Amino acid sequence: MKREEPPPPIQEYKELSVSRGISILDLILRILAIFGTLGSAVAMGTTDETLPFSTQSVIFQAQYDDIPTFRFFVIANGIACGYLAIISLPLAIYHIIRATSAKSRALLIFLDTIMVTVLTAGASAAAAIVYIAHKGNSSANWAAICQQYQTFCVRITGSLIGSFAAVFILILLIPLSGLILSRQH
Amino acid sequence: MKREEPPPPIQEYKELSVSRGISILDLILRILAIFGTLGSAVAMGTTDETLPFSTQSVIFQAQYDDIPTFRFFVIANGIACGYLAIISLPLAIYHIIRATSAKSRALLIFLDTIMVTVLTAGASAAAAIVYIAHKGNSSANWAAICQQYQTFCVRITGSLIGSFAAVFILILLIPLSGLILSRQH
Repeated sequence: MKREEPPPPIQEYKELSVSRGISILDLILRILAIFGTLGSAVAMGTTDETLPFSTQSVIFQAQYDDIPTFRFFVIANGIACGYLAIISLPLAIYHIIRATSAKSRALLIFLDTIMVTVLTAGASAAAAIVYIAHKGNSSANWAAICQQYQTFCVRITGSLIGSFAAVFILILLIPLSGLILSRQH
Repeated sequence: MKREEPPPPIQEYKELSVSRGISILDLILRILAIFGTLGSAVAMGTTDETLPFSTQSVIFQAQYDDIPTFRFFVIANGIACGYLAIISLPLAIYHIIRATSAKSRALLIFLDTIMVTVLTAGASAAAAIVYIAHKGNSSANWAAICQQYQTFCVRITGSLIGSFAAVFILILLIPLSGLILSRQH
């Protein structure tokens, strides 16, 4: 027969329910971040514009994978989305059930930190290229391509939104895990 | 007269000294990251190449601030360097003295997370532009400029190193803080 543990004092109950509340917020934010990264990856990955004119030898077409940085952006968002859905969601649910778990929260901080870096790297690199596509650069003699490829540019610009939103969510989630750990102290 | 506290049991001593050891490692890594970001900011911020020929109206010159992304890179490294030196170092020293401090470690996780994102954004955006400078992009008709501006390109490429090194150090430091917090549990 199992020995029954004595009920925790009221103060501890309160601490636990606050930790659990933060854990539920954590889960909701993670689901939003999954949609953000998924949306970004799909929006960028399907970007392809063919202009309605061509010469005999050249078809004017802009595809996201003409620019390696955009390919990296899609891969980074794919990895982050996979991590958030497959690894972090089960952990987040586990933290709602076991509000006092400490080691797995430290692990989550570690993995989240790597992911926020991967995601920021992809989003920022893509943003730098999108900026050149819009404005060009006269010193380097790089022309703005957005006058020609308007739809292409709207798509690549819009696809940044979901990715940066996911970055902001992860920036919030990492200290939240730290906060719960410090409260348990 | 002060009331003397009873000495902590041996197990607690051991825990404390491990936490203190990690805190000292944390301090050393932060000092390295300060040099990394400072070196990157200075290397990029002083990059300026004038080619040894000019036409009557044009002097061929490449400066880091011709490209806004590089200006962002210098600012991001400057902010990270200032944060690491002025805010995080005193906190890191405090953590060596007060190994059990929990709230200030949670604060450090929060600030480090913001800084790793700022730094990654600056470094990745600059890396994306450096890539175009080296390879160009035939689809967008952007020419590689590194054939002409060789010294410029060596400098801007080299200046990425310190910044990425600091990013890797911060990726390590954030989970280390989380680890100490989870051990105190």
